[in-house]
Amino acid sequence: MRVTDPAELLAAAQSGDRGAVARLISYVERGGDDAAAVSRLTWSAARRANLIGMTGAPGAGKSTLTNMLIQHVRAKGERIAVLAVDPSSPFTNGAILGDRVRMQDHATDDGVFIRSMATRGQVGGLALATPEAARVLAAAGYPTVLIETVGVGQVEVEIAGAADTTVVVVNPGWGDAVQANKAGLLEVADVFVINKADRPGVAEVRRDLEAMLDMHVAPGPWRPPIVEAVAARGEGAQDVWAAINAHRAHIVETGELVRRQAKRAEIEVREIVVRTIEAKAVAMLNSEQGAALTANVLDGSIDPHEAAAAILNEMET
Amino acid sequence: MRVTDPAELLAAAQSGDRGAVARLISYVERGGDDAAAVSRLTWSAARRANLIGMTGAPGAGKSTLTNMLIQHVRAKGERIAVLAVDPSSPFTNGAILGDRVRMQDHATDDGVFIRSMATRGQVGGLALATPEAARVLAAAGYPTVLIETVGVGQVEVEIAGAADTTVVVVNPGWGDAVQANKAGLLEVADVFVINKADRPGVAEVRRDLEAMLDMHVAPGPWRPPIVEAVAARGEGAQDVWAAINAHRAHIVETGELVRRQAKRAEIEVREIVVRTIEAKAVAMLNSEQGAALTANVLDGSIDPHEAAAAILNEMET
Repeated sequence: MRVTDPAELLAAAQSGDRGAVARLISYVERGGDDAAAVSRLTWSAARRANLIGMTGAPGAGKSTLTNMLIQHVRAKGERIAVLAVDPSSPFTNGAILGDRVRMQDHATDDGVFIRSMATRGQVGGLALATPEAARVLAAAGYPTVLIETVGVGQVEVEIAGAADTTVVVVNPGWGDAVQANKAGLLEVADVFVINKADRPGVAEVRRDLEAMLDMHVAPGPWRPPIVEAVAARGEGAQDVWAAINAHRAHIVETGELVRRQAKRAEIEVREIVVRTIEAKAVAMLNSEQGAALTANVLDGSIDPHEAAAAILNEMET
Repeated sequence: MRVTDPAELLAAAQSGDRGAVARLISYVERGGDDAAAVSRLTWSAARRANLIGMTGAPGAGKSTLTNMLIQHVRAKGERIAVLAVDPSSPFTNGAILGDRVRMQDHATDDGVFIRSMATRGQVGGLALATPEAARVLAAAGYPTVLIETVGVGQVEVEIAGAADTTVVVVNPGWGDAVQANKAGLLEVADVFVINKADRPGVAEVRRDLEAMLDMHVAPGPWRPPIVEAVAARGEGAQDVWAAINAHRAHIVETGELVRRQAKRAEIEVREIVVRTIEAKAVAMLNSEQGAALTANVLDGSIDPHEAAAAILNEMET
């Protein structure tokens, strides 16, 4: 019989059943009561999972860098999991996506778990499902979870930015191509990696980043270091990992880690409240009463704010 | 004295005051009571604004194509506005962004209004502010509003997909680079434009798109046409505009336009409900009671779902 009970699945996951891990993550992706049950179970076990965010423009080489870091971490005997929230990631293996599924490099290694998060469903749902999935992984024996998101898109940048340490990946030439959400990325960066550093223009991108840091980052105890790598050739893993660990040591020492965990808990509580109400609003809009409201909005007799007020009023009674 | 009353600002906007238009859009970006007031005023005037969505991977040439369409439309004497939701768009002129602000091509033309939407603030807030800003523009005398979003990111694709007609911009070579959220883009496309069609690989991308359409689009009255353009040289404007108008004629005839407007109204009502509750949840989390809840979550005595339930309970009483 197929196990569906979250508690039994978690026990199976903790004894090494990878299928159980995958099923628990599917529960948190779908939301609802099962997701809440999984979240309750994993909270006590793993609320302090070590989260590393990795973000940057499409094509910056985030997945190649992730792949390199996995090899580096595994060589030291540590376990690591990856959540790919990026639809353009080669780790994402949808029907149309995923031409080069490099995750197969690690398919036979029990010390690595790689999973892409589905982006369908409610807008913003990923902001809730991603930290919940990270806790499933931590509870299942992967204390370090790397979350890869594309550095474009409101939700995606917020998810990477909510990690303990956020790595922003840039390339030589980023100064020319207005392809990255530079201001948004600057705001969340704890470590910069100049990937593809064998190409011309490394000095320019470094100067560009330093100038942006001078302009926008308040002088404080942590200035994001700028590390070079050529991930496709496996160069720079040690430096990137050292920078991540240095940042972690810094935030542990200063108490910033606890502040980030508190901030994350707040965001998560807020998201649960919002998703709960959203589900109620959708149900009400799909009801007969909702259809009447929408018809009134469409014919102009009320405006969307009046319709929303009617729904909010209905919810309170 | 500086006019701040939404009704007075709208009157000024309607008599050609571009600063008033900009200020009204700032109101809807910020949200809150002023946004609601602006939305009420513009709903009756412009609830049926013609919305064209334009999306695609970063670097696909969306802004160049937009620029070309503006020139085409202006040559026919029609008025048009553009909302750029894409942080990588050259139309976006933040402090760090916007190296090549091509909007200046149109700076002296009263028949064109170009504006970038701020991406700061609440996650998902843009899903509400963008249609409200489009109505400001329609009420101010720009009946056609082109909404440009980057085709990566949950919120961004939903915004473009909620238009009457959604144009998805691709390039030769898109089959190789796993950079685009292909499945998500396929789902929202009404018209495909192969931009940069002077490069090799046009036949391949066309074959790729046709195969995806065969596989994923139910046979129906509208199959998205695939139009070629070289926007940087001004080639293809007529074909792209004709395809957009053909789609519009089709949805008017079949009643699909009304269904899309109804769907959009529903999304908007849902978003107002969600943002209202989100603001309340944030206020509660920032209160003394909220701080106590967060502390309990952090020390593991309750989990985020229990904290959210406490907040939801508090809201209902």
